Amino acid sequence: MLILALDTATDKGSLALMADEELLAESSLESAGTYLQRLLPGVEALLQAARRRLPEVGAIAVSIGPGNFTGLRIGLATAKGLAYALGCPLIPVPTLEALAAQFPYHPAPIGVIMDAKRGEVFFARFRCPEAQPLTIEGPVRLAVNLLPSQVAPPLLLTGPGLNAHEDFLKNSLPPEIQWAPLESRHPRAATVARLGRLRLAAGLTAAPARLTPTYLRPAL
Amino acid sequence: MLILALDTATDKGSLALMADEELLAESSLESAGTYLQRLLPGVEALLQAARRRLPEVGAIAVSIGPGNFTGLRIGLATAKGLAYALGCPLIPVPTLEALAAQFPYHPAPIGVIMDAKRGEVFFARFRCPEAQPLTIEGPVRLAVNLLPSQVAPPLLLTGPGLNAHEDFLKNSLPPEIQWAPLESRHPRAATVARLGRLRLAAGLTAAPARLTPTYLRPAL
Repeated sequence: MLILALDTATDKGSLALMADEELLAESSLESAGTYLQRLLPGVEALLQAARRRLPEVGAIAVSIGPGNFTGLRIGLATAKGLAYALGCPLIPVPTLEALAAQFPYHPAPIGVIMDAKRGEVFFARFRCPEAQPLTIEGPVRLAVNLLPSQVAPPLLLTGPGLNAHEDFLKNSLPPEIQWAPLESRHPRAATVARLGRLRLAAGLTAAPARLTPTYLRPAL
Repeated sequence: MLILALDTATDKGSLALMADEELLAESSLESAGTYLQRLLPGVEALLQAARRRLPEVGAIAVSIGPGNFTGLRIGLATAKGLAYALGCPLIPVPTLEALAAQFPYHPAPIGVIMDAKRGEVFFARFRCPEAQPLTIEGPVRLAVNLLPSQVAPPLLLTGPGLNAHEDFLKNSLPPEIQWAPLESRHPRAATVARLGRLRLAAGLTAAPARLTPTYLRPAL
């Protein structure tokens, strides 16, 4: 079954189309400010690249945050609209879990950091002994300067928060902590698709009318 | 410095644009048959998405195989042309190493398998205790039915060859061997960019006039 996955939780969103046995296509969506303009044309281009048609899509997986407030709303609204119109399952995938899932079979715990603005971060801790992450803690929102007291090696850190707070973290964390390489610090829609398939098999779908993003912050 | 990376070693090519501290954009290039038509428009779209201009590119990293014969030739020809015209360094990155580099800090050896057609595979073995893989063995070309005698756990297997020979490998390899998730079995241009930057710092650039792909097979 074909899964279309959307991630708009950060300023580097992405789209992926995944069949049962292979990833058919993936593309990045630049610029948070224009997701509203770029998302559906991106879906169209993705389907064309994979030579598939929208009605062939059997499920929509969507990254539900925490993350960029407006990005999440646009991504979720689009995913809901597509799932409702296609009459197919809508599968919410926690964004920080999708980040941890880029490190399958990893022996150390995986800490995921996303910038939450105003001196705060979203943080969650996972283990990923197999291909699917297990949540140890979080996600929570906390002041970035509290993070050093929360983490110790062995630990792999990943997430876009590493870039947002690089100087502070480099100076205040033990050097034994592993840092994810640059290309693995943003969510990939392809990972959202893979986790979405596992969640679908476990019955973890959502009603389009009711799903809301995980903001971890009161809406302004 | 801005690095533009190209990977056309498999039927799922990709392009990436990476700045010093972050990945700016990445996109997949579907369909091996049309790389000649898609590659340069893909570069153009990538630059536009990242709001950068071609003259800002400071180095070209290119995936040099082993892999798809025609894809490698088109990718390498394009990379050479761009590097020559821009007067910037051209950095060859071994394709199987870029695949292994998707598993940084991994405790087990990493075996990379790419289909070589005619019942054969390209195979190489790495360790990736830090962010950059170290080659243990290969790449070599061998009959796929010899592979089970060459591998034993602990081992993580990755590469597009897992999909091409899935039934045979599932039936003939020990179940303790770890399989890379679907979205990590193809080279990512973003990883090619990251390794390219490391190689550039180590002086491992190539003269555009002389670089040839790693075919591991006599040309027909």
